[in-house]
Amino acid sequence: MKRGPHPFPLPKGERVAVSVFPPIFPLFFGACGRSVGGERKFCMYEVSAEVLAGVANQLRIHSIAATTAAGSGHPSSCCSAADLVAALFFGHMRYDPKNPKYHNNDRFILSKGHAAPVLYAAWAENGFLPANQLTTLREISSDIEGHPTPRLPFVDVATGSLGQGLSVGVGMALAARLDKLDFRTYVLLGDGECAEGSVWEAASLAGIRKLNNLVAIVDVNRLGQSEATAFGHNIEVYQKRFEAFGWRTEVIDGHDMEEILEVLGAAGIGAQPLAIVAKTFKGAGVSFMQDKDGWHGKALSKEEAERAIAELQPKARSGRDLSIPKPADAPAPNVEGSSFSALNYNKGDKVATREAYGNALARIGAVDGRVVALDGDTKNSTYSERFLKKFPERFFECYIAEQNMVGVATGLGTRGKVPFASTFAAFFTRAHDQIRMAGHSHANLKLVGSHVGVSIGEDGGSQMGLEDIAMMRAVAGSVVLYPSDAVAADKLVEAMAVERGVCFLRTSRPKTPVIYDNTEAFPIGGAKVLRQSENDKVTVIGAGVTLFEALKAADALAKEGINITVIDAYSVKPLGRDVIRTAAQKTRNTVITVEDHYPEGGLGDAVAGELSADGIKVHKLAVYELPRSGKAEELLAKYRIDAAAIIEKVKLLS
Amino acid sequence: MKRGPHPFPLPKGERVAVSVFPPIFPLFFGACGRSVGGERKFCMYEVSAEVLAGVANQLRIHSIAATTAAGSGHPSSCCSAADLVAALFFGHMRYDPKNPKYHNNDRFILSKGHAAPVLYAAWAENGFLPANQLTTLREISSDIEGHPTPRLPFVDVATGSLGQGLSVGVGMALAARLDKLDFRTYVLLGDGECAEGSVWEAASLAGIRKLNNLVAIVDVNRLGQSEATAFGHNIEVYQKRFEAFGWRTEVIDGHDMEEILEVLGAAGIGAQPLAIVAKTFKGAGVSFMQDKDGWHGKALSKEEAERAIAELQPKARSGRDLSIPKPADAPAPNVEGSSFSALNYNKGDKVATREAYGNALARIGAVDGRVVALDGDTKNSTYSERFLKKFPERFFECYIAEQNMVGVATGLGTRGKVPFASTFAAFFTRAHDQIRMAGHSHANLKLVGSHVGVSIGEDGGSQMGLEDIAMMRAVAGSVVLYPSDAVAADKLVEAMAVERGVCFLRTSRPKTPVIYDNTEAFPIGGAKVLRQSENDKVTVIGAGVTLFEALKAADALAKEGINITVIDAYSVKPLGRDVIRTAAQKTRNTVITVEDHYPEGGLGDAVAGELSADGIKVHKLAVYELPRSGKAEELLAKYRIDAAAIIEKVKLLS
Repeated sequence: MKRGPHPFPLPKGERVAVSVFPPIFPLFFGACGRSVGGERKFCMYEVSAEVLAGVANQLRIHSIAATTAAGSGHPSSCCSAADLVAALFFGHMRYDPKNPKYHNNDRFILSKGHAAPVLYAAWAENGFLPANQLTTLREISSDIEGHPTPRLPFVDVATGSLGQGLSVGVGMALAARLDKLDFRTYVLLGDGECAEGSVWEAASLAGIRKLNNLVAIVDVNRLGQSEATAFGHNIEVYQKRFEAFGWRTEVIDGHDMEEILEVLGAAGIGAQPLAIVAKTFKGAGVSFMQDKDGWHGKALSKEEAERAIAELQPKARSGRDLSIPKPADAPAPNVEGSSFSALNYNKGDKVATREAYGNALARIGAVDGRVVALDGDTKNSTYSERFLKKFPERFFECYIAEQNMVGVATGLGTRGKVPFASTFAAFFTRAHDQIRMAGHSHANLKLVGSHVGVSIGEDGGSQMGLEDIAMMRAVAGSVVLYPSDAVAADKLVEAMAVERGVCFLRTSRPKTPVIYDNTEAFPIGGAKVLRQSENDKVTVIGAGVTLFEALKAADALAKEGINITVIDAYSVKPLGRDVIRTAAQKTRNTVITVEDHYPEGGLGDAVAGELSADGIKVHKLAVYELPRSGKAEELLAKYRIDAAAIIEKVKLLS
Repeated sequence: MKRGPHPFPLPKGERVAVSVFPPIFPLFFGACGRSVGGERKFCMYEVSAEVLAGVANQLRIHSIAATTAAGSGHPSSCCSAADLVAALFFGHMRYDPKNPKYHNNDRFILSKGHAAPVLYAAWAENGFLPANQLTTLREISSDIEGHPTPRLPFVDVATGSLGQGLSVGVGMALAARLDKLDFRTYVLLGDGECAEGSVWEAASLAGIRKLNNLVAIVDVNRLGQSEATAFGHNIEVYQKRFEAFGWRTEVIDGHDMEEILEVLGAAGIGAQPLAIVAKTFKGAGVSFMQDKDGWHGKALSKEEAERAIAELQPKARSGRDLSIPKPADAPAPNVEGSSFSALNYNKGDKVATREAYGNALARIGAVDGRVVALDGDTKNSTYSERFLKKFPERFFECYIAEQNMVGVATGLGTRGKVPFASTFAAFFTRAHDQIRMAGHSHANLKLVGSHVGVSIGEDGGSQMGLEDIAMMRAVAGSVVLYPSDAVAADKLVEAMAVERGVCFLRTSRPKTPVIYDNTEAFPIGGAKVLRQSENDKVTVIGAGVTLFEALKAADALAKEGINITVIDAYSVKPLGRDVIRTAAQKTRNTVITVEDHYPEGGLGDAVAGELSADGIKVHKLAVYELPRSGKAEELLAKYRIDAAAIIEKVKLLS
């Protein structure tokens, strides 16, 4: 194997010995060495490479047995990674296998989530899972799923959509820095997934942030799902790329346990993250599967499994009796705050909800130390810069890389932070898959999308969030909030910080008048009736800028003797359905929704989808055309979501 | 400036001379040189660098005047790029300014779309746009929008969401290869947007495909929106990255016209794409703006504009009288096919709709030479491999990089191809922003997402498309199709090829019985009534696998004397609303929708959102929980979208 330069070449065969740092490198190690039990150690494993190679075989056997029992799965992808996983879990990482959630455990992310069985096997061999659970793989009653999910306590984030793990790892590594914890984060990637741009977004930020507590291991097994990868075993390609993105790299034989342990032993050294590029073989260890086409995502037949296990068995050995390096004791970080300070807006003042977001973030950040903020080079537009100014160490500029920003936020969330990530709402579509996976991860993730709808004006369609409600509603377990004034926005940020899960706040560019008292409460799932009288003809539901159009329409109509109910649907998901239903029933079940969003999947569909079964008739005003540049008020008029359009519709329905 | 090695260093000052290729490099040039008028030329410009620098100043003046007139915009970002744009449009690219759509014109993509005014200025100085239109920038009545859109004939794709242009450029370069046209594609990127992973996905594929007809120019002006970029003027970072991704690079002073022309003159040489990394200054040419913070996205005041123009004016000169190199004449490619062959399924046979997609693609590809296919290393699951086997030259494996795949497909579409891109539906969320922008681009883009819903079974939640209908409905002008059997799938692929625009086909993993005749027609916007009788209690609407559950339920209920209407809603957008409304009105306006999708934004919301205003009551059955691994039929039951759930709901409503 061609090898990159190793800063501290360890003589082969001497790796059981624990090297105390030589005095010649005090500064170097002072920056990056790790303190364990008061003694700085360089190389921790007290188990021979031969034993670990045996454990790797045992992991292969489990993976094959489980996938054959399930009748599906990816045993060949498990086999290529087995030596790397065995080395990490039984010879290198410091963690408490009895307490996988311990905050100073080293973290492991299986970014190539389809190799899930080898991860489960490791957690069986370390004693956490009963071994007989492994063959419940993929059964409906089992948490041993096809791809890892946090239903299992040792899984921090769901994986299975490739290329996302490294971003999460960056978030974890940043959390360790912030909390002054010495745990490290290890991310195992496949070579195929390195085609995903998100990997390079993550790599870039890790390089910029010099995250030497982060290790990426690329399992270069050469074979993708449908054909060989573009680069096959030309592993220097991966090496060059990681180096160009600011990483230290090591190229190794991923089936040579001594070499694996040697480079892992040098993790954390220097001021760069470490990428280990491991040349491996898909199906390694099984003669008829190794490096052969046609074995991706395919379980072995019972007979094939027996043959494979017969080949692996002689050199297999259990990890159960091995002692795993313990993490250092450290105080738990992330103390939750409470009793946020009061708001101080004046009714009638004009304040954009995006600006109120910035205010709120600074306000709650002062009390709740878990709150951190991220942005994608839009902080002067989203107003997250107000948090940066007060808490620079808790602000993470992620540059123009929204996928990674969301992944990093998810990673921070797994370490007890309450991450708020902001950019233009339109650009969160860039991270849709990461947000989707955050739903699968039960992640504590707060997203704030500004510049929604045509009301942004002149910048034009590409900058307008017009599908963000549709996207965010269809995330499992999500909360979608859409404030109209500064008080609502500010209070909803507080609510998001308290609520666990994926929450989205939709903020607007234009300044809108403050209409609520500073003491008004905005429970998630509520709605506010702002106008109502005995003989209302129609219920008009708005949110954001359209709420003010609805209020204008109500005033104008009232002068003509036509009364309408006006509702502020600040909580789109969960929807304030009881408030809406009750109001609608008083207006002949007739509702008009008006939204600065496309008609599909937005506020109108939410109301219709939840209440049509009750006989509520929903008439939608929304942006039915591809919009263009123009002044905000011109665009609201052109696309028929202004007061005039509401008035016309109300008259039609009265 | 530090410079990368130049394969053919031209002596400075001699660049007006046109060099016929030296005989010493025949093979090299044979592969990459371009034939123009029968003569191979290396360096085309017949205009001095001084003149072009003057044109660049004129572009700056236009950009400043237009943004000041608009009161918003990004003049500083125009100024950094002005020399590069002037060199390309007036000294290098071959195109017909009177016919921007000519198929052998060199293509230019302004990936940094916020510099739109400098693009408009170039098309004014080349005589295409009347100069007085430039100051209508951002007005509602003007197509000179805040960011470029194809409302202007010289814009192939809308830009403004950063990091997408290079993928589109890859698509155009691939189309040139396919059609044996010698046009080149030039993509101008900002340095900030190089943080987007999609740039590196595109770079990687361009490197793999050795697209030496593609040139990326990075305008490294050091300053982002909210702060300096991570790498500032450390331009070697960009150079290293492009080199690691397989590109030839040139590092230049982006304000030195001679240097710009020199490296452009060497474009196309060698077997790699060329990245020109240009060190520039934001606001270049205007003393009080150049390289200063605080000028992103900010128009100059009238007084500032006057001062700036006074500085620029003395050395400005019009491009109107310059002669622009003409593209070579070439026959128009892309002849449309017709009279597709007949289908050949047998009723009752079980064929997955994903497999029918593969059949259809091969079938229509045989007749329509415009059809091309792309996949993200899932071609053996999506069945696009059936097209690959027949038409390997028209198949583009994009590896696991969905953003780039969609961008490449969009680029192919701009060159007259009918691109079908496929992967798991869940993974199209990765490309949501690219799909969104395809809507803004009026792109001719066909997406086929397989493995939808819980019916994929054991692989688990991360692999299940459960939000794709919501995502795709909310794309401007999109068509969303969801076939249940092979005939419908096959016919709908044909319909997609004929329909212009963004179309999405949702295919399923399980085999389902063929229920339609091979001659059945499936117009976009239609729906099929499959069961109906005089005294139906409820209308049940299904699509995909749930249609068969509805049919099962109908059969079971009929035995109990309860009749229901069953509709196949194969066209989700546009919805077959008349068919549905008419049927629903015969069942007391009572409708049950049943879908293998989350309840938000899917089929149920589509029906409710479009028909609740008519008094139709929609009861939704959908996947209301975060799903897990299991067998398909177990999961349909667990999440209450199977026949039993339908029967229960029908009885409740009868």
